[in-house]
Amino acid sequence: MSPGVYTPRGVFVCFEGGEGSGKSTQSRLLRDALTDAGHTVLLTFEPGDTLVGKELRRIVLDPATGALADKTEALLYAADKAEHVETVVLPALARGEVVITDRYVDSTLAYQGAGRSLDVAEVEQVARWATGDLRPHLTVLLDLEATAGLGRFEERDRIEGESVEFHERVREAFVRMAEADPDHYLVLDARAPVGDIHQQILQRLDPLLGQAAR
Amino acid sequence: MSPGVYTPRGVFVCFEGGEGSGKSTQSRLLRDALTDAGHTVLLTFEPGDTLVGKELRRIVLDPATGALADKTEALLYAADKAEHVETVVLPALARGEVVITDRYVDSTLAYQGAGRSLDVAEVEQVARWATGDLRPHLTVLLDLEATAGLGRFEERDRIEGESVEFHERVREAFVRMAEADPDHYLVLDARAPVGDIHQQILQRLDPLLGQAAR
Repeated sequence: MSPGVYTPRGVFVCFEGGEGSGKSTQSRLLRDALTDAGHTVLLTFEPGDTLVGKELRRIVLDPATGALADKTEALLYAADKAEHVETVVLPALARGEVVITDRYVDSTLAYQGAGRSLDVAEVEQVARWATGDLRPHLTVLLDLEATAGLGRFEERDRIEGESVEFHERVREAFVRMAEADPDHYLVLDARAPVGDIHQQILQRLDPLLGQAAR
Repeated sequence: MSPGVYTPRGVFVCFEGGEGSGKSTQSRLLRDALTDAGHTVLLTFEPGDTLVGKELRRIVLDPATGALADKTEALLYAADKAEHVETVVLPALARGEVVITDRYVDSTLAYQGAGRSLDVAEVEQVARWATGDLRPHLTVLLDLEATAGLGRFEERDRIEGESVEFHERVREAFVRMAEADPDHYLVLDARAPVGDIHQQILQRLDPLLGQAAR
């Protein structure tokens, strides 16, 4: 695997973690704090934050879709990523903005690779091709026991409805990726107080923000 | 690129060619002739001959979809292929049937590779992964000048609406693939009489049909 591409303009921050780990809450808090500090911030998410992505998100998450071949699912997520990177993420980074995304390539590797029966290296090759191998400057992993996150939902979508073992494999995959590249990851205990987590993220991001547009 | 996988059971036949080249007519004639001869035949097509494929076909062909990133389009076609091969083509071949498909991997390589700005080797790698590198025993290429086929339609979909130059590049890509592997291709002039084309296809297929279920 190549060492990846880190955009020379803007700052690219990614939130990863299992269901119910607080990614949405923390990504909004971060967006608000950086905006208040004078940065231009784009908060986005995968899958689904493009026109075609909305349709793909519906297909992969709707229980009515029923069974999909593992490769089909991985390729639909990759298509969502290709559109998202080319039409949303890269243009904002080129304008020098801070881009915060709720889920990115690691989610594909964790869910479609470790969670399914596919060869993770092959899934990664497809996802890296889809994204032009664009990497976040920092990925914040909100780590949480699989059962803790799932317990928060009464109605689960197609992915959330998978077994506890599936979600355990997903969690382990996230942690392994973070441990392999500590320069680009911040792993936090998702059960810590929301404000504490937020402060740790701000602290870690501080040295990166010099290059972003205000 | 690996030499590909040729299923040991059943016979896998593919029709390729540009718009209006007669693929649908010839694939139906072939299905009927082989059925009359006692074979069990499955006639299928790409994109769209699965539940999720129908939705993907709508997305990629509907002019209302608007612009898609080239990689997005290639990945949507690959997702359609993954589902088609795993849930339709392979099960029928495993039952020893003759599977006839109207379009397959070559269409992806011609339209998304040669037709767009993508690296064809990369598009091929994704499409081969999607299909487990399953290859047809025979691909029938119905060759036709790009302008001749397009002239038959008043209303064109998102792909048909591309420029004549786009369709010329597609045609050239089809011919190059056929010339590179003559053992697995039959190239026919699509302007020949329908019955003549049909007879040439039957003649070429005859030695392959011994292994198919009757």
